[in-house]
Amino acid sequence: MGHRPFRDNRVTSHVCLTARAFLASKVIISDVVDEKIRSTVEKIVNSWGGPFSVEMGVPWRKAVSNWKARGGAVVLLTMYGENIANSDVLERITKLGKDLMVIVGSEKIDPECYKICDFQVAIGNEPHAETSALAVFLHEFWRGRQLTHKFKGAKLRVIPQKRGKKVIKVKRG
Amino acid sequence: MGHRPFRDNRVTSHVCLTARAFLASKVIISDVVDEKIRSTVEKIVNSWGGPFSVEMGVPWRKAVSNWKARGGAVVLLTMYGENIANSDVLERITKLGKDLMVIVGSEKIDPECYKICDFQVAIGNEPHAETSALAVFLHEFWRGRQLTHKFKGAKLRVIPQKRGKKVIKVKRG
Repeated sequence: MGHRPFRDNRVTSHVCLTARAFLASKVIISDVVDEKIRSTVEKIVNSWGGPFSVEMGVPWRKAVSNWKARGGAVVLLTMYGENIANSDVLERITKLGKDLMVIVGSEKIDPECYKICDFQVAIGNEPHAETSALAVFLHEFWRGRQLTHKFKGAKLRVIPQKRGKKVIKVKRG
Repeated sequence: MGHRPFRDNRVTSHVCLTARAFLASKVIISDVVDEKIRSTVEKIVNSWGGPFSVEMGVPWRKAVSNWKARGGAVVLLTMYGENIANSDVLERITKLGKDLMVIVGSEKIDPECYKICDFQVAIGNEPHAETSALAVFLHEFWRGRQLTHKFKGAKLRVIPQKRGKKVIKVKRG
């Protein structure tokens, strides 16, 4: 929410790539279309695998109401919410068992968003970054399992090294 | 490492704020000085507490060699390193018991950096974001305790809410 083309290009790209690497299936960039972001995401998915998609331009209220109509729950990540570290908010979210839409944005979150979300979750109650908040939320949600996930259709794969880089091309059968 | 003033302003600010919120004591922005970043960090520390400081302009090799001369260890966060999720790298770092310098940067990490670091740690071996990598590394390092830390000298404090925002001014004795 609240992406500003050009000014937010890198931050929003980072949110998208974190979403993919931490096993979200899709990102919706609400209200605006930014082909540069789409291109960045598509290049990554093409090389490193998916599935992961990006949708753009849908008004945020519509995206949220469509999601709720389909039976999904909405989590707003904000420093003002229940702290994931000392509340039962993640347990309540998990128990609910619904598909999740996770909303992140800059400091200018639309105040109405605080009303329509089902949960507001703080990754600590200090100011930091939407990218960090998304990463730690998904890290806790998946209990770290996302970090060893094998993505489908990857053309490249890293062979972890104590020192230096090793990237191999994945052969197809 | 590798901050480009203006273009990287928001990403680097997010790295700094994540570092503070996740209990690093200091950030060094190597090789360049960017007063806008300094101002952003100082405003946050002034309102939300510390201690947390920012140093700028020191050449990265000098920052690293000074750190090693003081007995510290150097961790490079990179998607090419040992995966924190399925290796013993964090255990080895913790057992070493040294103060840590954690290096993050854009994709253009100086190749020499791979040689001089003591550990290279991957927060998963997929491309995502330096902000996310730093957040999850520190989250795992502190085992989540950073998320409930009370910062010293805070003028503002969030009272966590299930819905909406509540921020109070902290009274001084």
